[in-house]
Amino acid sequence: MKSAVTQIRQGEKPKMSGKIIECVPNFSEGRRPEVIEAIVAPFRGRQGVRLLDYRADADHNRLVVSLAGEPGPMTKALLEACEIAVKEIDLNMHQGGHPRIGAVDVIPFVPVMGIDMKACVDLAREFGMRFYDAFKVPVYYYEEAANNPQRKNLEKIRKGQFEGLKTAIKEESRRPDLGPAALHPTAGATVIGARKFLIAFNVNLKTDDIEVAQKIAQYVRASSGGFCHVKGIGLVLKEKGMVQVSMNLVDFQKNALYRVVEMIRMEAARWGVSVAECEVYGMIPAQALLDSAAYYLQLNDFKPEQVVELALLGSGGEA
Amino acid sequence: MKSAVTQIRQGEKPKMSGKIIECVPNFSEGRRPEVIEAIVAPFRGRQGVRLLDYRADADHNRLVVSLAGEPGPMTKALLEACEIAVKEIDLNMHQGGHPRIGAVDVIPFVPVMGIDMKACVDLAREFGMRFYDAFKVPVYYYEEAANNPQRKNLEKIRKGQFEGLKTAIKEESRRPDLGPAALHPTAGATVIGARKFLIAFNVNLKTDDIEVAQKIAQYVRASSGGFCHVKGIGLVLKEKGMVQVSMNLVDFQKNALYRVVEMIRMEAARWGVSVAECEVYGMIPAQALLDSAAYYLQLNDFKPEQVVELALLGSGGEA
Repeated sequence: MKSAVTQIRQGEKPKMSGKIIECVPNFSEGRRPEVIEAIVAPFRGRQGVRLLDYRADADHNRLVVSLAGEPGPMTKALLEACEIAVKEIDLNMHQGGHPRIGAVDVIPFVPVMGIDMKACVDLAREFGMRFYDAFKVPVYYYEEAANNPQRKNLEKIRKGQFEGLKTAIKEESRRPDLGPAALHPTAGATVIGARKFLIAFNVNLKTDDIEVAQKIAQYVRASSGGFCHVKGIGLVLKEKGMVQVSMNLVDFQKNALYRVVEMIRMEAARWGVSVAECEVYGMIPAQALLDSAAYYLQLNDFKPEQVVELALLGSGGEA
Repeated sequence: MKSAVTQIRQGEKPKMSGKIIECVPNFSEGRRPEVIEAIVAPFRGRQGVRLLDYRADADHNRLVVSLAGEPGPMTKALLEACEIAVKEIDLNMHQGGHPRIGAVDVIPFVPVMGIDMKACVDLAREFGMRFYDAFKVPVYYYEEAANNPQRKNLEKIRKGQFEGLKTAIKEESRRPDLGPAALHPTAGATVIGARKFLIAFNVNLKTDDIEVAQKIAQYVRASSGGFCHVKGIGLVLKEKGMVQVSMNLVDFQKNALYRVVEMIRMEAARWGVSVAECEVYGMIPAQALLDSAAYYLQLNDFKPEQVVELALLGSGGEA
C-alpha cells in the first residue's frame, strides 16, 4: 500500500554516501598500561571513527584494537597510534607468547559497507606507503593486498619472528614490499593488508551428544569438504547440557548465514535433533543479517539504503 | 568459535550512543518551486540530519518532506524551515485538494533507534512550545502526543480546515493546546505529535485470483479482526499476472514482519498458492529486519549494537 503518511516514492531511494570499514590493528604491547592507553587514545572521541573494543594480553604481550569507521579519519588516527607504538616499543626488549615481527605488528583493513575489497586493498597500500614514509619501518602486504601468493599468509611472513627476520630479511624471498632489506632497529617490520569480515557464529543443538556436533561441523566446514569459507568445530556446552557447532564464517557473501543455519538444521534432523539457539559472537556487518532477512521474507529488490539507519551513515545530510 | 582475528570479547559490546528519529513535516505549498526549495534548504548538507525524500504535489498544493536524524539538529533545521513556510505561505490564498489548517500543517516525530515513544512525545511537545514561541501559530498535539483521546485523530483536528477553523477554534472542544482561541492570520494552526514508524509492505502471490488476496487481506488486517496493527487490501498486479496483499504495518514491534509473512504463507497454502516475493516499499527501521533475522536464525541475546554500522551511528568515536 502506498502510504499516505510516510510519502516515500519508489525509485527515489536515498543514496548511500558512507564508506565504512573495520580495522583491527595489533600492537606488540600488552603489559605497560600507560603505553597501551597512549596507543588507544587517538581512537577516542573522534568524528568518523569508533573504538569498538581493545584488549591487552600480558601473556601474549600484545594489544588488539577493534575499530570501525570511515577510511579518511581511520587512517589519520591509525598513523597517530602507530607513531606512539613505534616510539615506545623496542622489540629487542619484547617477550611474549604471540608471534610478532613489529611494534605495529599487523593492520588489516576490512570492507563493511559502501566499499569493496579492491578499494580496501588500495586503502591498505596507500596507508602502507604513508606508514613507511613516516616511520621508515619496512612493510609487508598480506592477504588480499599481497603482491604474490606466498605473501597471502600472515604466518609465512612472520616466520622466525623479529629475531629471525633480522637476517632472513636479506633473502630474496623475504624482502619487504616497502623499504630496504633491513628491519627497523627497534620497531621491526609491519604487515598491512585487506581481508574479509570474519563472523563468529555458534549453533547450539538440543542434545548432549558431542558426536552430533562434531559430525555436523565436519559437514559444513571447508577443511573436510563443506562450505568453502566456513571453519568449524564441535564443542560440549556442559552447563547448558547441549553441544555446539562453533564456526568462523570467513566470507558471509559466498556462504550466507541462513544457508549455513539451514544446512545444520537439515543435518541435525537426521538424528532427531533440533537447533536450540544461535549466537552471533561479537560484531557482524548489517549486510549479513539483511541477506538472511531478505531470504526468509523473500524480499525482492531490497536495498540497504531503505534501512533508515544505513541511509544516515556517513551522510552530511544531502539527499 | 572465539575468533583469533577479530578479538572481540563477549560482554564488551559497544554502547549505542545515537538517538535516531524520523520526521515527516507537511507544508501547504506544492506549486511555487522557489518557496518549496527554500523550505527544504535548511535540511540539506547538515550534520545529523538527512533529507531522505521530498515531494511537492501541485494538485494537493502540498509539500511532504521525509527526514531522518538526531533530535537536536533535526528540530533546529525544522524551525528554520518553518520560519520560511510561515513567512511565505498565506492560507487565505491557498487552494488544493488536501485538507490543511496551517502553512506548516503537520509535524510527526517518529522513534527509529535509541529513543522510545515517550521521549518522542516529549520531543514533540518541546518542539511545539519552541514553535509557538517563535511564530505565534497555535499548536494542536496529536497521536501519541495528544492531551486527550479526541485529539489523537488528525482528521478530527483538521475538521473544517483553515476556513472553518477560523470560527470553530472558539469552541471549547476545538481550542488549541498552545496559543489563544484564534488562528494565526496567514499561517493558521499547526498539528504536532509523535507516532510509530509505518512500514509499507507488499506480499505478491503466485496466482491471478484476486479473491485469494482479498481473503488473506481480510485475515491479516485489524479492520476485519486480524492483527491489531496491520492495514491491508487485496490488489491485482496485471503485468505480473499475480495478486498482492498490500499492507501498512503500523506497529512492527507488536505485529512483527515475519509473523505477518508466515501467516500469509499459511493461509495461501489453503488454496495451493505460494508467496512469489515480498517488497518493502520505501524506508524501514533496522530493528524490523533484525527482528525477522533473529527469529529465523534463532538468534539468542542478539543486540543491535553488534551490527557494525549501528554501533557507529551517532558516535563521536568513544567506545
